[in-house]
Amino acid sequence: MKFTFVTLFPNLIEPYFKDSILKRAVESNFISYEFSNPRDFTTNKHKKVDDAMIGGGAGMLLFCQPLFDCLDDIKKKNKDAYIVFPLAAAKPFHQNDAKRLAKKKNIVMVSGRYEGIDERVIEKYANEVFSIGEYILTGGELPSLVMCDAIARNVDGVLGNADSLEVESYENNLLEAPSFAKPEKYQNLSVIKEFLKGNHSKICDLKFQMSICKTKYYRPNKEKR
Amino acid sequence: MKFTFVTLFPNLIEPYFKDSILKRAVESNFISYEFSNPRDFTTNKHKKVDDAMIGGGAGMLLFCQPLFDCLDDIKKKNKDAYIVFPLAAAKPFHQNDAKRLAKKKNIVMVSGRYEGIDERVIEKYANEVFSIGEYILTGGELPSLVMCDAIARNVDGVLGNADSLEVESYENNLLEAPSFAKPEKYQNLSVIKEFLKGNHSKICDLKFQMSICKTKYYRPNKEKR
Repeated sequence: MKFTFVTLFPNLIEPYFKDSILKRAVESNFISYEFSNPRDFTTNKHKKVDDAMIGGGAGMLLFCQPLFDCLDDIKKKNKDAYIVFPLAAAKPFHQNDAKRLAKKKNIVMVSGRYEGIDERVIEKYANEVFSIGEYILTGGELPSLVMCDAIARNVDGVLGNADSLEVESYENNLLEAPSFAKPEKYQNLSVIKEFLKGNHSKICDLKFQMSICKTKYYRPNKEKR
Repeated sequence: MKFTFVTLFPNLIEPYFKDSILKRAVESNFISYEFSNPRDFTTNKHKKVDDAMIGGGAGMLLFCQPLFDCLDDIKKKNKDAYIVFPLAAAKPFHQNDAKRLAKKKNIVMVSGRYEGIDERVIEKYANEVFSIGEYILTGGELPSLVMCDAIARNVDGVLGNADSLEVESYENNLLEAPSFAKPEKYQNLSVIKEFLKGNHSKICDLKFQMSICKTKYYRPNKEKR
């Protein structure tokens, strides 16, 4: 699985692959990554990539030419390129998408900056558009990394222990139950007693009930989705 | 506004402050940041910070002692510390939270790793718990950065142009309308004609209608929230 990041600021993305789980995943060749900078494709003599919005509005927009040429170049070099735009106005990215996209060979993430991207770029090149949540960020780099991290976890080999994929939140549409490590009592706080008795069937039951409670509390509209 | 990141992997976070908007915000003293590493607080002679889950379950958990001591230290040094845990099982982080938290003096983000954090740490120290979306990540570092970025944008001075805060998605509970930059026609793709005529009242109207359409399409349950 190769991730291709289209960004004006590769320095905001690359360090995340230099430590912890994704570093190991790259070193073990489970995933790889590369960058393509639209600024390298602009034909503007001042290397400009952004311009004012047509029809008024504050802020600057990435205009078509550098992104068109950059994405054409990527598609020419990568026959399997699957192009994803993280956008504020898009469908919510969900754990099911992370699992589904983990089967692709090459995912291209296109980061907007400033006020966004000329809509025609999205119209022409997007295979999918995603929003990672209902808030506004300064650019598409963090959402690209978030989706990459969520997808990479589901690529075979990246997590050592496949078990730990199964009991996570969202995997069964329920939030995860509380977890505890030693000691049984720390300061005045104790582990839930049932967890200590070693009856795994009862512990599973209890965790399931707690998951339902947590989900009802934090996602009251969950059933309606 | 100071952000304090509690993390085993500061290298996953720090580079994001070295470029683009947050770099400028730090250089102009609108925001600052610091790190506190639970590993510096562990009393375990092998510097261990994680242990098996009580009651069974795959993966390791950050245990109480290093985090308790780390967070006590932060609270002693920062009277205004407001402690936030990014978690999978928590309430959804929303643009309204970003605006609200932008008024705090010191936000402490506690990153979990491995299978998570002993629930007693959260119980004792959390002022708020947030999920940035319905997917699983390898750690709390990216969600901490995502919330930091969303909050920082709302700190006075960080964005040069306050106008550009107003017309974003989620600010008025609607997704943003498409935007365009020059040229009016690129390859075969044209800007929406009404945008070119310069009647700003009509353009506003049209953008509002398109926002409603986009929101209905991408967030069919929006009204029910």
